[in-house]
Amino acid sequence: MSAPLIGRLVVVGVGLIGGSFAAALRRAGQVGEVVGVGRSSDSKREALELGLIDRAESDWAAALDGADLVMLAMPVGQMDAVMAGMLPHLPAHTVVTDAGSTKGDVVAAARKCFGARIGQFVPGHPIAGAEKSGPSAARADLYEKRRVVLTPLAENASVAVDLVRQAWRVCGALISETTPEHHDRWLASVSHLPHLLSFALVSELAERPNAEEIFNLAGGGFRDFTRIAASHPEMWRDIFFANREALLAELSAYEAELAYYRELIESGDAADLEARIGSARAARTAWAERQG
Amino acid sequence: MSAPLIGRLVVVGVGLIGGSFAAALRRAGQVGEVVGVGRSSDSKREALELGLIDRAESDWAAALDGADLVMLAMPVGQMDAVMAGMLPHLPAHTVVTDAGSTKGDVVAAARKCFGARIGQFVPGHPIAGAEKSGPSAARADLYEKRRVVLTPLAENASVAVDLVRQAWRVCGALISETTPEHHDRWLASVSHLPHLLSFALVSELAERPNAEEIFNLAGGGFRDFTRIAASHPEMWRDIFFANREALLAELSAYEAELAYYRELIESGDAADLEARIGSARAARTAWAERQG
Repeated sequence: MSAPLIGRLVVVGVGLIGGSFAAALRRAGQVGEVVGVGRSSDSKREALELGLIDRAESDWAAALDGADLVMLAMPVGQMDAVMAGMLPHLPAHTVVTDAGSTKGDVVAAARKCFGARIGQFVPGHPIAGAEKSGPSAARADLYEKRRVVLTPLAENASVAVDLVRQAWRVCGALISETTPEHHDRWLASVSHLPHLLSFALVSELAERPNAEEIFNLAGGGFRDFTRIAASHPEMWRDIFFANREALLAELSAYEAELAYYRELIESGDAADLEARIGSARAARTAWAERQG
Repeated sequence: MSAPLIGRLVVVGVGLIGGSFAAALRRAGQVGEVVGVGRSSDSKREALELGLIDRAESDWAAALDGADLVMLAMPVGQMDAVMAGMLPHLPAHTVVTDAGSTKGDVVAAARKCFGARIGQFVPGHPIAGAEKSGPSAARADLYEKRRVVLTPLAENASVAVDLVRQAWRVCGALISETTPEHHDRWLASVSHLPHLLSFALVSELAERPNAEEIFNLAGGGFRDFTRIAASHPEMWRDIFFANREALLAELSAYEAELAYYRELIESGDAADLEARIGSARAARTAWAERQG
């Protein structure tokens, strides 16, 4: 047997994202020991029972000793505090990456905490959420054929970026690379805004006195449109704040589009309305075909 | 063998909805002959080849002769013209129903065309769309455990409503009854508005010069949120116009909710934002559990 890619992996936040990363590496035989760190003892116990981690630690020095790779997989709102706690105990050879859904704020937090050691931090984002959360939702195949975006920094040694790239490749992910700024703007369009729109639809209906009757008439379209409205509230609150600027810009563009649809419907402009819907259908169908 | 529920069924519009209705009744042995009527000869030929219909007719007199039930399954924008063409040839014993996604406008069109014979028309709406359309998308199990809303009229004989109810029961559907007005208001909330929101997201992104790059970063949340954006443009154009008033009222309520989210994000109100998202998650989760 050749040595695994990662001798010791530390996962901070042993939920769906961190747990699935560990499970995928373990399934491939590419990790020696997995150490779990997190604020919830219940999650750590559950992760131990499920075999996602080999050891749970609440002490940074013990957790980080001999670590080859650290995966930060908590909600992005906790990045600052976690990085500040971790850094004094971080060995010089250890590579740190993250799974945060926003990159600009995470890189800013990392620059502040890591300082001259920023080269050790390789930012990343697996685009593979699910409405389920927690260790019990973790699956070794979560990342198969899913997109992972890395936003490497000028300070990263190529060996550090390679380690993170290889780890995701072992998980079966498709890897893209771009800048943190592009990442945040694009993700605001295709992920953060859709989540906001889906939350808003459901929370508005839920407030109504006859909500249950209305929901009873909902069908498959509603089910799919609102699946992401069951996503984790704290995680999404953090993402909306972390990517506020790009998200609000996307929201403005979207509101303008909605106003255009309203105008077409009010004025009875059948040809333009059908063309606009047709352009959505064509783009959605082409995308689905590219996804295979 | 006992006689089938429907000796002769006429399906006007042999696409996903009408074709699946015929296929389900046939699978259950509850239809004798299925006659297909429609403006597209390609669809009729395809429906014949697939065995969805036994006979295609373009002449109303030939199509309606001896018909027990007529299912109107074209886009709602064609109801007026179809009903006007059909009525002079409609036998007195024949029950007519429809699958239109809006009911107020269909009932208004029916009252105008049927006049004193309005008792023959039992309005209905199966909530079982799909992004696919056409005869090849038809499936005998499309309506299993799906909701069908009937909005019977005061003039309907109970035997006419019963026939339609039994036909849908044979298809495996769950049947609700309400007024056309309630139907339209509720469907605007849980179906028409979500379609509009999904079309708007995709058509806005599709216009951008870097649309393909952006779409490439889209994941599972985007896939589900935008599935309905691949729906049939003409059908949805018609629905938006047919249910314009209720839809625009829902859109206004939604825009107010979006403005509230914007305010929470701009002001950094973490507690209220998390609570609002939490209320969406709770309502969505409870609904999914009721659906089983």
